[in-house]
Amino acid sequence: MGIERIRVDKKVLQSNDEIAEANRLRLAQLGLTGVNLIASPGAGKTSLLVATLRALHGRLRCCVVEGDLATSQDADRIAALDVPVWQINTGGACHLSARQVADAFDQLPLAGNDLVLIENVGNLVCPTSFDLGEHAKVALLSMPEGDDKPSKYPGTFARAAAVVVTKADLADHVDFDLDRVERDIRRLNPHCRILVTSAKTGEGIGPWCDFLGEQVAANRTATDRDAS
Amino acid sequence: MGIERIRVDKKVLQSNDEIAEANRLRLAQLGLTGVNLIASPGAGKTSLLVATLRALHGRLRCCVVEGDLATSQDADRIAALDVPVWQINTGGACHLSARQVADAFDQLPLAGNDLVLIENVGNLVCPTSFDLGEHAKVALLSMPEGDDKPSKYPGTFARAAAVVVTKADLADHVDFDLDRVERDIRRLNPHCRILVTSAKTGEGIGPWCDFLGEQVAANRTATDRDAS
Repeated sequence: MGIERIRVDKKVLQSNDEIAEANRLRLAQLGLTGVNLIASPGAGKTSLLVATLRALHGRLRCCVVEGDLATSQDADRIAALDVPVWQINTGGACHLSARQVADAFDQLPLAGNDLVLIENVGNLVCPTSFDLGEHAKVALLSMPEGDDKPSKYPGTFARAAAVVVTKADLADHVDFDLDRVERDIRRLNPHCRILVTSAKTGEGIGPWCDFLGEQVAANRTATDRDAS
Repeated sequence: MGIERIRVDKKVLQSNDEIAEANRLRLAQLGLTGVNLIASPGAGKTSLLVATLRALHGRLRCCVVEGDLATSQDADRIAALDVPVWQINTGGACHLSARQVADAFDQLPLAGNDLVLIENVGNLVCPTSFDLGEHAKVALLSMPEGDDKPSKYPGTFARAAAVVVTKADLADHVDFDLDRVERDIRRLNPHCRILVTSAKTGEGIGPWCDFLGEQVAANRTATDRDAS
C-alpha cells in the first residue's frame, strides 16, 4: 500500500508541475516575475507584503495572490492599498497548488504588472515541495521563531533564493543569533541572499525591494534573450 | 486520478487510526496519559516543555517524544533535565504518525510514568489530522504569531482540549488581542481551556501544570471505571 501511495502522489506532483510550467509561461509572456513567499504561520508574510507594496509604489507594478486555509483577512489588508489581490482559501489543505494559482491568475488583472507576489499558506514544510510557476521562492524567518529553524526545517531554506529575517524590531527581546542563522543557511544554500527586516520600523525594506527589482530585471533579460 | 488518491489516502489514515488505538490501549494498560502538542514552528513547544518538566518534577513522572524533520536539538534540551526522551526525525514529513510514536514507545521506559508529552513537528495544519493515540491534543499559539491565527487555522484550534498562549513576556512588544483570540477559539471550540504562559518568566506555568494533572487524574478515573 505504501508503494501504491508513492506512485499516485508522484502522478499528482507531475500534474502540479505541468500546471506550474504553464503558469510560468503565462507570466513570461506578460513580462511578469512571480515570487512565492513561504514561512511559518505568523512569521509576518502579510506585514512584509504591506510594507513592500508601499515601498514599491511608483517603482514596480505589483499584484498579489493570498493563500490561507480560511478567511480573507490577508487579502483585505492588501486590497486596502489599492493593489489587485485574489484570496485563495484552501479549506484544510496545507499548501497552495499550481492549479489554485492558475485560477487566481484568471481572476487578476495580470497584464501591465511587473511582479506577482504569492503568499503561500503558513507552513514551513509542505509548500516548498509544490512548484507554483514562480521564478523564485523566498523563505521568511521571524526572530521570535528562533535561530534553530534553518537546521530543523532544511528543505524550505535549501530551496530559497532569499531568506528574509522578519520582526527585527524584537531583536532586543528574543534570543536570536543571526550569525548562527547565516551559517546554517549557507551550509544548505551557499548563494542564498539573507536580508534582515522589520515591517514595523522599515528596517531592511529598501534592500529587500532592491532584491525584488533585481529579480524582475534578471527575469526580463532572460525572457528577452529567449525571444531573440 | 483525484478520486484514486482520496481512496488510497483514506486507507493510510485508517491504518494510522488502528495503530493510534493500539498506542492508546498500551498507555491505558500502563496508567499513562498522552498529550500531543501541536503548534507552528517556533511557537515555543520545547521551551514550554522544559519549563513544564521542571515544574512537574516530584509531582508527575514524565517522558517525552520529540518530533522534528531533522536534528536532535530538542531531545538534547529535554535529556539535559534527566527526563527520558526519544527523538523522531521525520525526514521531510510534515507531521508525526502513530507508527512513529509506537516505535518511540518501544524505546522509552514508559512503565512507572504518569504522562507522556509528545511534541509534534512544527506545523499548524497537518498534525491535527493524525491521531497518535494521545488522550488530548494541546495547541500552542505564541503572541508574536498574532491574534488572527485561530480564525485562519481553525482545524487545529477546533480539536484542542486546551490552547496554551506562549511568550506572554512579549505582550508589550507585539500587537496581540487576547480577547479576540478567546472569542475566536470559543466560536470553534466552546469548552477549550485557554492558558496564558511565558516559559521565560514562569507566568501561567502553574495553571498549565494543574491542567496536565487534571488530565492524568481524569484518565486514571476513566481507566479504573472501565476495568471495574
